[in-house]
Amino acid sequence: MALTVVGSIAFDAVRTPFGERERMLGGAAVHFSLAASFFTEVRPVGPVGDDFGGEQFELLEARGIATEDIERVAGGQSFFWRGHYDFDLNVAHTDDTQLGVFGEFEPKLSDAAKSADTLFLANIQPDLQRQVRAQCPAGFSGLDSMNLWIETAKDSLTAAIEEVDCLVVNDAEIRMLTGESNLARAARAVMEMGPQAVVAKRGEYGAALFTGTGAEDQSFFALPGFPLEDVRDPTGAGDSFAGGFFGYLDGSGGDLDEANLRRAMGYGTVLASFNVEEFGTERVSRLQREEIDERFEALRGMTQFEGVPAPRG
Amino acid sequence: MALTVVGSIAFDAVRTPFGERERMLGGAAVHFSLAASFFTEVRPVGPVGDDFGGEQFELLEARGIATEDIERVAGGQSFFWRGHYDFDLNVAHTDDTQLGVFGEFEPKLSDAAKSADTLFLANIQPDLQRQVRAQCPAGFSGLDSMNLWIETAKDSLTAAIEEVDCLVVNDAEIRMLTGESNLARAARAVMEMGPQAVVAKRGEYGAALFTGTGAEDQSFFALPGFPLEDVRDPTGAGDSFAGGFFGYLDGSGGDLDEANLRRAMGYGTVLASFNVEEFGTERVSRLQREEIDERFEALRGMTQFEGVPAPRG
Repeated sequence: MALTVVGSIAFDAVRTPFGERERMLGGAAVHFSLAASFFTEVRPVGPVGDDFGGEQFELLEARGIATEDIERVAGGQSFFWRGHYDFDLNVAHTDDTQLGVFGEFEPKLSDAAKSADTLFLANIQPDLQRQVRAQCPAGFSGLDSMNLWIETAKDSLTAAIEEVDCLVVNDAEIRMLTGESNLARAARAVMEMGPQAVVAKRGEYGAALFTGTGAEDQSFFALPGFPLEDVRDPTGAGDSFAGGFFGYLDGSGGDLDEANLRRAMGYGTVLASFNVEEFGTERVSRLQREEIDERFEALRGMTQFEGVPAPRG
Repeated sequence: MALTVVGSIAFDAVRTPFGERERMLGGAAVHFSLAASFFTEVRPVGPVGDDFGGEQFELLEARGIATEDIERVAGGQSFFWRGHYDFDLNVAHTDDTQLGVFGEFEPKLSDAAKSADTLFLANIQPDLQRQVRAQCPAGFSGLDSMNLWIETAKDSLTAAIEEVDCLVVNDAEIRMLTGESNLARAARAVMEMGPQAVVAKRGEYGAALFTGTGAEDQSFFALPGFPLEDVRDPTGAGDSFAGGFFGYLDGSGGDLDEANLRRAMGYGTVLASFNVEEFGTERVSRLQREEIDERFEALRGMTQFEGVPAPRG
């Protein structure tokens, strides 16, 4: 199985109460790819500038990530994001965004990228998402987006959502997209647009999975964020979640039954938790598969009831 | 087993996007008692005014709640709260609070109230909580509080927390109380004050349970809020959660092992979910035990992984 992802491949400048980095590898497609690389063959698609060099390619290739569809634009600058977090690490404050080579990006997928079994459209302009989707008819596809596109490109975003199987966005964005404050109703409204599954990302509260719209087939599953005493940089947590989720689904053969989707939620949660322990890609780039499995089992232990006898009261 | 709870016994005026009520039975001790009444013998302690009459007593007594420790103050007015909720039902806006007879309240527990096995100190002025605790040496005790007391009576609140076994508050209040933004660290800081367990209430995101502080004994469990398409009035959800949690623990014989605490989290979640389906006490006052058990099983189904084979990737 193989997975193609399109999204930002970037440099980030980040400051949190626990430190700062002036220029580190980042971007949605990078965090996604690193997380997914533990489960399957993953291929990020997107442009970078001259400033993206051997060090960055090596970090990706060391995790077995296929980098042929990362297009190096001569004379261009890579996407750049500067942001900070205060006491509340759930809120990212954006200080600067420079699209760089993404401003002129016209996706042209390689044959290998086109023939992926699974496609993830990370958060970029929805017209670009649609151009990529048109080239890659993958059997299972997902999409992330953000408030900016809901506000400025809603028609295009709606069309993009109609073309994918699974929407993975923050819960506030599901509400905003549908105009429905109740999350269960908002998720149903999304599924009526086309997707068969909706994953609501909830920051430190974890993530919730909605599937099915009828009385017979609708299902709900939720996992808390993995409890950590040391969270240093939340940047990329949502992309790492998506990478763990889609990476696991693709790597396990594309089985989309409820049990496998729930396991994928678990792997997404685990990858997001490692991501936030250190800055940028620092933690995930040296992560070992055994650490993932160990934390997955710990997470399972944190969410299980045991046998429940009737109370005496 | 028997449970004593002290807290507001009140009339509420509430407006939400789904309707409004001008004067309905409410208050923390009322919501708590109704929820707990499905599991054990519960006895609310607190003052009411002349305006609290037969209709209110009958509603409580119909659920088997012992009302002898509800003190009717001649010439007094019951506690009154007026509030509203907008699009985001997680945020309560307080428009008016009138302490009424609570302003002069000096708790004098009956022998029956004093001899309870379990004590819950719902959110009131922490000096009052301590006065009640001094009269009731119950083997298991819990406490709720709010930002107001953290800001205005922190020393007294700290002393009250030191005297109980389990703190049950909103996660923002755990952070505020400890000055620690990381919830896992904040919960540990609370346990170092005295309590052996901390329950963080998280609104629609559910609740998390922290126990133990050492590498060997620390444990974490979290449940999402039960997903509902119709939430009409969130007032009292947290008190209903606490009532289900402590009521189940008391009714099941006071067994405080991890598995029983987790089941109690489940019952708390279920009772809170029924509470918010309609205004005030409307839903819980006509709830049936079978509905609770059915929803508990549904909740369990929403939080279980099934057998997890190794992924192929």
